[in-house]
Order: sequence, then C-alpha cells, then structure tokens
Amino acid sequence: MRIVDIIEKKRNGGELSKEEIEFFIRGYVAGEIPDYQVAPLLMSIWFKGMNKRETTDLTLSMVASGDTVDLSAIPGIKVDKHSTGGVADTTTLIVGPLVAACGGRVAKMSGRGLGHTGGTLDKLESIPGFQVSQSMERFAEIVKTCGVSIIGQTGNLVPADKKLYALRDVTCTVDNVSLIAGSVMSKKIASGADKIVLDVKTGSGAFMKELDGAVELARMMVGIGALAGRETHALVTDMNQPLGNAVGNALEVREAIEILQGKHDGDLKAVSFALAAKMLVLGEVCRDEKDARQKLDRAVASGEALRRFARMIEMQGGDPSVTEDVGRLPQAKEILPVKAEKAGYLASTDAVSLGISAMLLGAGRSKKEDAIDPAVGYWMKKRLGDRVAVGDVIAEFHVGEHSDLDAALARFRGGIHIGEAKPDLPKLIYTTIDEGEA
Amino acid sequence: MRIVDIIEKKRNGGELSKEEIEFFIRGYVAGEIPDYQVAPLLMSIWFKGMNKRETTDLTLSMVASGDTVDLSAIPGIKVDKHSTGGVADTTTLIVGPLVAACGGRVAKMSGRGLGHTGGTLDKLESIPGFQVSQSMERFAEIVKTCGVSIIGQTGNLVPADKKLYALRDVTCTVDNVSLIAGSVMSKKIASGADKIVLDVKTGSGAFMKELDGAVELARMMVGIGALAGRETHALVTDMNQPLGNAVGNALEVREAIEILQGKHDGDLKAVSFALAAKMLVLGEVCRDEKDARQKLDRAVASGEALRRFARMIEMQGGDPSVTEDVGRLPQAKEILPVKAEKAGYLASTDAVSLGISAMLLGAGRSKKEDAIDPAVGYWMKKRLGDRVAVGDVIAEFHVGEHSDLDAALARFRGGIHIGEAKPDLPKLIYTTIDEGEA
Repeated sequence: MRIVDIIEKKRNGGELSKEEIEFFIRGYVAGEIPDYQVAPLLMSIWFKGMNKRETTDLTLSMVASGDTVDLSAIPGIKVDKHSTGGVADTTTLIVGPLVAACGGRVAKMSGRGLGHTGGTLDKLESIPGFQVSQSMERFAEIVKTCGVSIIGQTGNLVPADKKLYALRDVTCTVDNVSLIAGSVMSKKIASGADKIVLDVKTGSGAFMKELDGAVELARMMVGIGALAGRETHALVTDMNQPLGNAVGNALEVREAIEILQGKHDGDLKAVSFALAAKMLVLGEVCRDEKDARQKLDRAVASGEALRRFARMIEMQGGDPSVTEDVGRLPQAKEILPVKAEKAGYLASTDAVSLGISAMLLGAGRSKKEDAIDPAVGYWMKKRLGDRVAVGDVIAEFHVGEHSDLDAALARFRGGIHIGEAKPDLPKLIYTTIDEGEA
Repeated sequence: MRIVDIIEKKRNGGELSKEEIEFFIRGYVAGEIPDYQVAPLLMSIWFKGMNKRETTDLTLSMVASGDTVDLSAIPGIKVDKHSTGGVADTTTLIVGPLVAACGGRVAKMSGRGLGHTGGTLDKLESIPGFQVSQSMERFAEIVKTCGVSIIGQTGNLVPADKKLYALRDVTCTVDNVSLIAGSVMSKKIASGADKIVLDVKTGSGAFMKELDGAVELARMMVGIGALAGRETHALVTDMNQPLGNAVGNALEVREAIEILQGKHDGDLKAVSFALAAKMLVLGEVCRDEKDARQKLDRAVASGEALRRFARMIEMQGGDPSVTEDVGRLPQAKEILPVKAEKAGYLASTDAVSLGISAMLLGAGRSKKEDAIDPAVGYWMKKRLGDRVAVGDVIAEFHVGEHSDLDAALARFRGGIHIGEAKPDLPKLIYTTIDEGEA
C-alpha cells in the first residue's frame, strides 16, 4: 500500500477502505508517513468528505493509536458527555453532580482549554486545593462514593488526534465534519464510556456556524457511536451568545454552584437539564425523559446535587465550602461595569469575540504555556432580545493584574450588537438526534 | 501575510493576489514555509484551479526564484521549443538543425529524462564524445557558428520548480493545468528565449490523456507567454503511439539522422516540420508557413540540415561521422524480433507501457542515479492502423547486458492491442493555438 495512491483515491472522490485508513493512521503516528503527505490527504477529505463507514474506521483507527481507559471497576452503565465547545459552557460542572444525585455514575475525563476560555479542568482548578490528577484507583473510588468525578486525561489517549489536530490547525483542514467527528468520538471511545451524550453547538461562537453543518456533524457522530457499539445521542444547541452569564473560570464555577443551589434559571440550566435527562435515560437510571426531569428538579430542590458536588470537591482535595459560600472562590481585584453607549435591543453577539475578550482579561490561553488567572472574566447582565437603555450595564468585567483591559473591552464591544428592532431569538435546543435517526 | 490564510483563500475558491503568490513561492524556496503547508495549498489549487493571471504570477515568481539565462550575446530572435513529453519524441534533434539550416538560431537548454526513456541530453550523449556541458561563451559561439547548440542547464534555474515538482510528485498534485503550465513556462522563460513554440501532447502516453485537457493546458501556456512578454504558440499533437519508430537513445539519434538524410517520412518528421515552420515564422526568418515549409524541404534535400547537425556535434566534442554512418552509434549486442501472436489491425497502444518497456531494456531511468544503456531500445515496425498477420514483426528489440528482457517484453505486449476491425486513426496535429487565441 502506498500513501500517494490513498491520496489520489480520496482526491478523485473514492471511498477509502478500512485497511487504507488504518495504514494511513498507523503510518502517520509511527512517523513513517510525513506531514507533507498527510496534509494533502486531509485537504482531499475536506473537499470530498468521508461517509459514515469511513469516518467510523478513521475514529477506530485513531482509538487504536494509543491507550484506552478501562472503567470496568466502576459498576453500572457509564455515560459520558461532550460538548463541541463554546463560550460560558459550564454544563459539565452542573450535569455531573445532577446525574450523580439522581443515581447515575459520571466518570469523566476532561481537557484543558486552548482558545478563548479555560476548559473544565481549568474551571475546577479555580476551586482552592482541587486536584484534577488522580490515579485510576482513586478515580473509581470517588465515582463509587459520590457518583461523580472529573479528572484530567491519564495515559496516552489517541496520539493520532494530537498529531492530526496540530496539523489540521496549520493546514486549514479543521472545519470538516468527518475530521471533527473522528477527533471527538475517538477521545470519547478511548475514555472508556459505554454510552455518549453529545452537545453539538451551532452559531457565531461554534465551529459549525450553520445549523445544517451542526446537524450533519451530530448525525455523523451518532452514526459512528452506533457502528462502534457505543450508543450515542446528540442535542444540537445554540451558541449565538455565551450559554451562561458567567465567562471566566471561578465565575463559571460560581454560576454552576448557584444553579445547583436553585438560584438561577435560564439557558445554561436548561441545556444542563436536557443533557442530564438524556444521560439518565441512556444510563437506564430513569424510565424516560419525564421521570428524569422530575428527579432532576428534586435533586436541586433537596440540595442533593450540590452536596454531591461538595463531596467530589472534598475527595479531590478541594475546599467544599465554596458550594456554600461562593465568596471563597478567587476574587478579581476590580469589578468594572461595561455600559451601553446606545439604546435598543441586544440584537446579536459574536460569541468568538466575546470569548477572545475573556482571554484578553486572562481567563484563557492563546498559547499552551500561558497561565490562567482564575478570578478574571465577566458576567453578562443582558441576553439576546433584552431591551437596553444608554448607560445600562451590559456586563461586569472582573479585571486582574495581567488583564489587557483596553483590548478586552474593544473586543467585547465589537462582539455586542445593539439594534433598533427586537430581534428574533434563536432557539436554544434546535433538535435531538438519537441512535437510529442518524 | 500568513500561509494558512492563503491556503484557506484558495481552498474556498478565491483568487490569489500577486503578492500572495510571491509570498508563497519566496517563502517556500527560502525554507520558511514547510512542505506540509505547501502540499495542501497545491491540493487546493488542484481542486479550485488558478486563472491565467494567477498562473502567470506563479510562473514569474518561480522564474524569480533563481538564475536566468542571458542570451543577448547571440544575435537575432531566439525561439525555444518545448514538448510536454512523450515516447519517441525526438523532435529537438531534428528541429534544431533544420531551423539552423534555414537561417534561424536555436540556443537550447535541455533536461535529462526521468521516466520512460532518456531526455534530449541522454540521446545526444549516445553520440561518442558528445559534451552537453558547455560554458555560456562557448554555447554562444557554437550557436553563432552553426546556428544550433543543445546543452544542459547551467546555473540554478527555477529552484522553485525543483522543490515544487518533487513535492507534487509525492502528493498527487502533478496533473493540474496551472501547475504544469507554471513548471514548463518558468523554465522556458528562465532559459532566456524571446519566443516559444510548444508541443503539447495528448493521448495514452501524455500527461493529458484527454484532448480537452491538452487544449486547456496549451491555451494556458500561450496566455502566460503573452502576459509575460514572451510570444508563445502551441501545437496540440497526438501521443497515442510512439511519435517516431525508434525508442531508445542511440536508436532515436539514428532515426533523427535518417530523417535529416531524407530517408523517412511519417509522424516524427511531420511534427518536426510543423514545429520548425512555427519557429521560423515566429523568429521572423520566414514570411509565412508556406515559405517556411519550402525552405525546410530544401534544407533536407540539400543536405544543409544534416551538415548543421554534424557541425554542432563536432563543436561539442562528438564524432560527426555518425551523421554519415549511423553504424558508428552504439550498437546493441543482440536484436530480437517481437512477432504478432494474433492477426488483425494494430488498434491501439498504451504509450506509457511502451515507454516503460524501453526503460526495462535499459533506455531510461526509474531513479535519478540509474545508468542508461545508450544502445538499447526497440524499433517499431508497425503503426496504428497497420494490418498485422500472425508472425509479423511488430518491433525489433535491441537488447543489452542489463536489459530485463522478460519484463520489457511483457510490458511491450501488454501495451499493444491488435483488434479485428481497422481502427479510426487519431489525428496527428489536433490544433494550433497562437497568441491572441488563448
């Protein structure tokens, strides 16, 4: 087998065989096939696409390139969740304790953020003392005790994805359904979950700006899950504005805690509940969606979800009292109101600009080596469709020592559009794709 | 400027600016842009194409990447010719002396063959003593004295093409009109010619299998020539069988000599005359095609073309007596007839297989380091449309010590198709594209 022939086949619109895909992934990870041949293959895939079978073979070849996690020490059906990423997407911190409180098991390995704001691990590390590194034994013990644990990746999971992602990033081949699906699903499958719930974002702050693309991606991933024997369901949800109101690590932990305390409703809670309900049904903890919703409401009202979160924080070395008093989370030295300079309605936001604004305040990394300031970020005071008068506070900026405030403000204002007419609001949850529908 | 943005622009079907193309070529040759980013850009060009303006900018950026030849020491309009390559395409050895005999000037730099059979330099080196390396001073002197000289490339002409070609070869991006046109025209322009005549091949033995693609390529190159201030005309000619009857280095020299001696008519002579006539008109030596054709006939009949060839061979250190006695050229140790196993008509040939057959006999290189045996090859005894009886000699194989005879025979037989019906013959010269028609 020769890689040039594989490039030519895909370039000419052919369907790659399982053997050809395995040859490519294995050879690339082994360093036998150079970047300069993989890059034009990726570009050919960008142009010609891969069908569900090819994408599944790609995914499974990627899984086989490294270690896989064995979660069999944890009893029950392990349901993982994954979001394709967005601004103020704090669902994991809410969904994990909620599902645990309802009797589910969440053994979750998360990543760090590279991009606008921190990832789930960065958010958890804003809790004083919290340790994201745990041995597999301790991880299983925490899940068994409190129903939920969130840790950093252990072992060498999916090295093919690390190499491919780095190459895609510099060769303009990121935005392809099959390559995104392979990247996401290979990591989920390698992480050992039995079943998977996906939150595929669409809108100005998502990879997939258009709904059609997001639906196609969701269908592709649900299909891969089915072919790979990991039942997968997906929600397609809106990312035309930050999902929650808090953007920034400790601020997002605070919002998650306040939702578990029953203090907020709104989009972040709604998406978290929808994901958690799916996980409970898929994990065979609840009969159906309705049953799950009732249990979720009770888990908040009774304080059980919050207690699960506190218990997990404690078992992972953190200070559980933050769940009682969010003032114990890192605090910014200064809070500045950002006011509307024009009256009207909040018509649209460019969620990517808003994310970059948070990064400029110090909440995210532009390079892997960058340090994160857990306390900084902002709290949105208006959402799409809200009436705005001149001087109204749109957001509160939490500013730190290393914040580039001017740049952050400019990006923020550039990402906020106030219009004269009340805008049509995007749906929050566009559609659900279950196995069999992909 | 960032190369990722240039990749993205082309991938999305955009038109690259002159500055973007220069940035890419300069950065690539300087080693600042890596292969793994150039390869997906080439693939995007393969998918999305380049218009005439972009291709001209590409060509001129490639020319600027290295040295250019100054032919101003040679008086008159220097007209170069180039063939896109094929089997038994010995036109240069015939056209050069012919044009010189009619009063034109041919200062030609040629390449070596990598592929089926040798290139023009390899063919000339089969003449005992012939030196393809000459100083620029001596080159000019030979052209002034005998009207024609053919030497190897001097200096570092178009290093961008060397790098790009090596990369295209392993990334499945060879067969693109703009990339081929840029490669050919950059070398022609860097070689210093004032005007250019192109022989674009189409058929089973050509890059461009289909006539449409060949015409598109010819138009593109004629257009580039016009935009670059080097008037260019093109013929589109057939490569569905070896152009001449001789395949192999010394054998092709022999056929060229015999044509200059007036011994053969046929396709090779016809294409050579057509090219030479174009060059004479373009070089303002002849009024028109008719005038040129008369002069060409006289140049053969008078023996002047043959004398020019002998004189050039002598001035380049070779034995001019080969032009009187082709028996002085290297001779194979064995000549084997290849006979028809089936009766009918010679219906079609796969010219690539026939070329590979010659290579297996030792007439070409499969790797740059391979040595060539000047004496080996074969002489076709039948052409397309000829009636063939069982046992008729189709070709005479000239076999050497290092010939892989079995493999060569198998390839040869695999490349010859004898059918029952008399086939429609392909045209020899499909069309002519002159400046202004592109």
